[in-house]
Amino acid sequence: MKSVAVILSGCGYLDGSEVHESVLTILALSVNNAKVCFFAPNVFQTVVINHIDNKLKKEYRNQIEESARISRGNILPISEANADNLDALIIPGGFGVVKNLCNFEEKGISCKINKNLLNLIQEMYKQKKPLGFICIAPVMLPKILKTKIKLTIGDNNEIISKIEKMGALHVKCNADDIIVDEKNLIVTTPAYMVSQSIFDINKGINKLVKKILDMS
Amino acid sequence: MKSVAVILSGCGYLDGSEVHESVLTILALSVNNAKVCFFAPNVFQTVVINHIDNKLKKEYRNQIEESARISRGNILPISEANADNLDALIIPGGFGVVKNLCNFEEKGISCKINKNLLNLIQEMYKQKKPLGFICIAPVMLPKILKTKIKLTIGDNNEIISKIEKMGALHVKCNADDIIVDEKNLIVTTPAYMVSQSIFDINKGINKLVKKILDMS
Repeated sequence: MKSVAVILSGCGYLDGSEVHESVLTILALSVNNAKVCFFAPNVFQTVVINHIDNKLKKEYRNQIEESARISRGNILPISEANADNLDALIIPGGFGVVKNLCNFEEKGISCKINKNLLNLIQEMYKQKKPLGFICIAPVMLPKILKTKIKLTIGDNNEIISKIEKMGALHVKCNADDIIVDEKNLIVTTPAYMVSQSIFDINKGINKLVKKILDMS
Repeated sequence: MKSVAVILSGCGYLDGSEVHESVLTILALSVNNAKVCFFAPNVFQTVVINHIDNKLKKEYRNQIEESARISRGNILPISEANADNLDALIIPGGFGVVKNLCNFEEKGISCKINKNLLNLIQEMYKQKKPLGFICIAPVMLPKILKTKIKLTIGDNNEIISKIEKMGALHVKCNADDIIVDEKNLIVTTPAYMVSQSIFDINKGINKLVKKILDMS
């Protein structure tokens, strides 16, 4: 049974991990008989957002505590993740990626990546373990790996322009499909970056999970 | 296109709606071409629980605000739900059902149901619209409808004994299956009450959603 790290950063698309993308990733891993190992940073979220009116709330929430709502309690601090024990890694989307896992939302192309996550992904890449990035998550790739990665981030021209400036090779892709960088073992799908249909994003996430497991 | 109410009560299985069961319900409704109408009570959760150590947190969270993390913002107060505009209704599980939608956790067989929810379900039942209850949610049925309902609540003997005392006809059932009360148009599946496998509970929830749509 293959062990796949799923990296979360809170619970809710405006300030943490996108809930549907996370659950569909977990479902696809279960359907394909893989073991899920959840990790999240054990630090506060950058912000807490009311998901009805999109307004900032004066609250503090911890990323791993909130992520545990998605993982049903079964989760470790990302500082404890060990590439040697993992066969692959997947990061669902949500603004948590650009607010918590890195600071792309604030800093754009000069953003920095959570140090534990950076070290983990660089080590897994070195060990030739496949990596899957969903929705906005691929935005971190050019900052993590020093090689030109073929990926998709959806159809927002401003974000495409930024990710190309950072060094990625961007390819447009629908929500029900994936972009595979065979050489670097990296799979991306745009999910809610390009669609409002859970039906479509489920297809893309399923393809991503199957491809990741095939390559591992 | 059929309109199906999905009733939420927060975000996280220990103090709100079970996240996986909610998302799998949404997915199955989308796959079967139904429109989802989200509703939740616009009041505070009874409690906020840390999902890592299961301990009470000194915090207040609003049910509809937290539910919006699952519905991606698209949700109305349950007081605004109108049975006339709905073809069916589904309630996912999670402790939110017995802490927020009713007070079964505290009061057991003398529990009371959220008044708006009570009125909504009684009206939908009168209009012969099918009702689906997942996981722990069926525990509310004997308090809402004054007739003997055939249902499943899993395999916990203490809870089975209580639901029978309240007047239900209990039938054991696996997570990948459903119990159908054809006469009363009620479908139940035990989900995480009997399984730890998202793969299994997805099968049960799929069957429930298909049956609900067939009957509507």
